Amino acid sequence: MAAPFPIREHRLTRRVQFYETDAAGIVHFSWYPRYMEEAEHAMWRAAGLSIHEAGGEHGWPRVAITFDYVAPLRFEDVFDVTIRVAELGTRSLRYACDMTRGDTRIATGSMTIVCVTHGDDGQVRSAPLPPAITSRFAVAESQS
Amino acid sequence: MAAPFPIREHRLTRRVQFYETDAAGIVHFSWYPRYMEEAEHAMWRAAGLSIHEAGGEHGWPRVAITFDYVAPLRFEDVFDVTIRVAELGTRSLRYACDMTRGDTRIATGSMTIVCVTHGDDGQVRSAPLPPAITSRFAVAESQS
Amino acid sequence: MAAPFPIREHRLTRRVQFYETDAAGIVHFSWYPRYMEEAEHAMWRAAGLSIHEAGGEHGWPRVAITFDYVAPLRFEDVFDVTIRVAELGTRSLRYACDMTRGDTRIATGSMTIVCVTHGDDGQVRSAPLPPAITSRFAVAESQS
Amino acid sequence: MAAPFPIREHRLTRRVQFYETDAAGIVHFSWYPRYMEEAEHAMWRAAGLSIHEAGGEHGWPRVAITFDYVAPLRFEDVFDVTIRVAELGTRSLRYACDMTRGDTRIATGSMTIVCVTHGDDGQVRSAPLPPAITSRFAVAESQS
Repeated sequence: MAAPFPIREHRLTRRVQFYETDAAGIVHFSWYPRYMEEAEHAMWRAAGLSIHEAGGEHGWPRVAITFDYVAPLRFEDVFDVTIRVAELGTRSLRYACDMTRGDTRIATGSMTIVCVTHGDDGQVRSAPLPPAITSRFAVAESQS
Repeated sequence: MAAPFPIREHRLTRRVQFYETDAAGIVHFSWYPRYMEEAEHAMWRAAGLSIHEAGGEHGWPRVAITFDYVAPLRFEDVFDVTIRVAELGTRSLRYACDMTRGDTRIATGSMTIVCVTHGDDGQVRSAPLPPAITSRFAVAESQS
Repeated sequence: MAAPFPIREHRLTRRVQFYETDAAGIVHFSWYPRYMEEAEHAMWRAAGLSIHEAGGEHGWPRVAITFDYVAPLRFEDVFDVTIRVAELGTRSLRYACDMTRGDTRIATGSMTIVCVTHGDDGQVRSAPLPPAITSRFAVAESQS
Repeated sequence: MAAPFPIREHRLTRRVQFYETDAAGIVHFSWYPRYMEEAEHAMWRAAGLSIHEAGGEHGWPRVAITFDYVAPLRFEDVFDVTIRVAELGTRSLRYACDMTRGDTRIATGSMTIVCVTHGDDGQVRSAPLPPAITSRFAVAESQS
């Protein structure tokens, strides 16, 4: 089956684990950025890539996130995390993210990442996004 | 000693734990919202309050967060998390947060929380911020 | 489809997430008990049960765990967590757990849980395991 | 001030954070191994050591843990984690751990670690415990 490059968005379906809940009986808000990252890494795998290869040349630090929380998630809820490529620049990549449980909007988020290389001197340096990677992705038409 | 009410900001000093690091050798970005919340809860304790009392009437869900990541944190780094009251509305409270390691800016963030009550019918309802709580806090002069 | 009760064991297949790794480049050891619990809860769902029902009468605190770590897991590894019912007493239930990645043994573990009820006075009391629950499970023949 | 070598035990005092609680209203059991490790790393710092030095030669994988859970911890509880050197072998080090909140026994645990080196070929190999490290520690007299 031909890989459907470029990838514009990816949907991850996920169940809430007990250790993700807190004493208010809902998923702790710090898990939502992790859910967004899980969807991101699944999107990279769908594009034939790994965002963190052992001995790899590049790193992808996160430089900004936002989250708006609309409705809670509870233990064993099944929900969707849809991540879209929102901007694809020469030095950064921005994602938009929707979380839903059935017809219920749970949250929206965004995340900006940049590319760095690890020099022989151990220093981390900003780098342009490698074309071999950005060519696998394209900006999603709908960002709603 | 008289409590220094109202509280406008609070500084938490914190050491990076090993389980907070990831395979890139730095603190995973999902910990920063937790650090911000730790500082918030310490500020509430400094104001003589607990944000989550067993059997308490009110809950304080988080409705929005933002984070900008400037420099990484590594295992055993000691750093400061300074949280300030940025807006104190009738139905929401917004914090601004700075994270620093010595003179190095690590990150800035913000978080907005609202108040809810748990009715006898088990339903969660939005509620105005209780004056007994908001009177303990005031907006910080400097938000930089 | 007839449910295959009683359930004696359950296998969960799982991928390592980035936030589960640490600065040594491997999954932090504190995640293995969480993986074991994920498999346990999946086994309960396979038995038509939820281990934590909203407003439910019973709770299932963990009273003992053990883990032996044999080989590491790394980012994006796919692995299996097989949990078995090892002992089914009147007041406690003990699981045995194997973790493998292909033919490689990753870890073995065990966990003992008990049953409690929440009285009207808010007190937590030890309780016998409810037959409606224990009848869904049986001790696995092989514990290796 | 002379360092009180060898170190036999270390006590860490710690407050429960909100994100450590779960929907049962208590600290999730997977946090106890992390608390034990926090105390271990604090004991190494008290011995003038870091268990994970950037570019360091040695690694200290965990090969076994046990935990017995006696009483729960709740949000904002302050508790003590006392870790002791229980066995100091040529190739492994075993700790015993007690957790208490005031006079209440919360949990007991144990953890065994070994030493590895990272060869130039990238292979991880078992290694004897370095005398420069083991000379800083001694077996605690009381293991109760």
